[in-house]
Amino acid sequence: MTASERGLFVTLEGGDGSGKTTQAARLEKWFTDRGRTVVRTREPGGTEVGQLIRDIVLHHRGDVAPRAEALLYAADRAHHIATVVRPALERGDVVIQDRYLDSSVAYQGAGRVLGRDEIRDLSLWATGGLLPDVTVLLDLDPHIARARLDAADKPFDRLEAEARSFHDRVRAEFLALAEAEPDRFLVVDASLPSAQVGEIILSRVAALG
Amino acid sequence: MTASERGLFVTLEGGDGSGKTTQAARLEKWFTDRGRTVVRTREPGGTEVGQLIRDIVLHHRGDVAPRAEALLYAADRAHHIATVVRPALERGDVVIQDRYLDSSVAYQGAGRVLGRDEIRDLSLWATGGLLPDVTVLLDLDPHIARARLDAADKPFDRLEAEARSFHDRVRAEFLALAEAEPDRFLVVDASLPSAQVGEIILSRVAALG
Repeated sequence: MTASERGLFVTLEGGDGSGKTTQAARLEKWFTDRGRTVVRTREPGGTEVGQLIRDIVLHHRGDVAPRAEALLYAADRAHHIATVVRPALERGDVVIQDRYLDSSVAYQGAGRVLGRDEIRDLSLWATGGLLPDVTVLLDLDPHIARARLDAADKPFDRLEAEARSFHDRVRAEFLALAEAEPDRFLVVDASLPSAQVGEIILSRVAALG
Repeated sequence: MTASERGLFVTLEGGDGSGKTTQAARLEKWFTDRGRTVVRTREPGGTEVGQLIRDIVLHHRGDVAPRAEALLYAADRAHHIATVVRPALERGDVVIQDRYLDSSVAYQGAGRVLGRDEIRDLSLWATGGLLPDVTVLLDLDPHIARARLDAADKPFDRLEAEARSFHDRVRAEFLALAEAEPDRFLVVDASLPSAQVGEIILSRVAALG
């Protein structure tokens, strides 16, 4: 099955603070207003099993071996795609998902000790090869993202607490992924006003819906 | 690193009720009596992180997608090998482990919907390719194993509660794995008296220690 045979599968990628939640809500409203059924979801943690997995990864700071961490994220993904996303796409729904395999590649592959191809292969095995119809990359300088998060007084999870250079590498990795798959990715400058970012996204997604 | 460069890595495989715990204790005593440091461990669940993973798999009966379950077991394995087994082998210790990748292949690969090679590849990726110096397969008719477990009044976990034919397939799969790697495997008839089983195992393992 490709997603577009039935439903529509849209993923949002980018660092924390880049506006993924705001833009996902905007997209949801747009599709709902047009009578489509929308499933808003996220990884990691989009299912009950996924929440338990997320607890393990986030609450054992530094104690989880790198390959184990990659496999836990892949397990979350496998369960989430099999029990939430594929059934929704088969019903013809629109799935709007916060983070998917590109986040794994960018955060784990580039930022950690494991290779990009290994992480990607693991995700593709986990999901039976399901790729989004479109992936929106909200590209933002980590300095600006951090200032936004500080202003919102949001707590930092494990990855957010790591070094600044890590976030720079993640950003570069996201951009490299987008460059490698220009047909799937839409890269948007997330420093633009939120409404303008939303218009850019809609101009691409509307053509698919 | 191959295990035998430093320590010694022995795994015990076979169905529940085949006597793995008894034989592991016997092996441990034998090595300890000879002044070796022994690490007794098991999968799944040989670490704190592993216990949390095991809780997810066992307590969500039937609700975990098959690939997710395979990835969770692989994550447990990756963490356990990286944090317990490899450090012990590097110190020169003897590691005696209840279940390893052959159990995953036999239970998940043959018994479920996923292929043998996929499960094996996943385990090998998880562990960086670590294989035991010797794997003892305690081969037993599932009828006899079940009678032993009933006599001991042990609770059944999820796999034990499944159909009889499943256990027959698992047994056949274990034997096929042993046949494919005769140098690594020692197959022992676990219906023999426990002391005799122990002697057969020692005659093989003693030569390696």
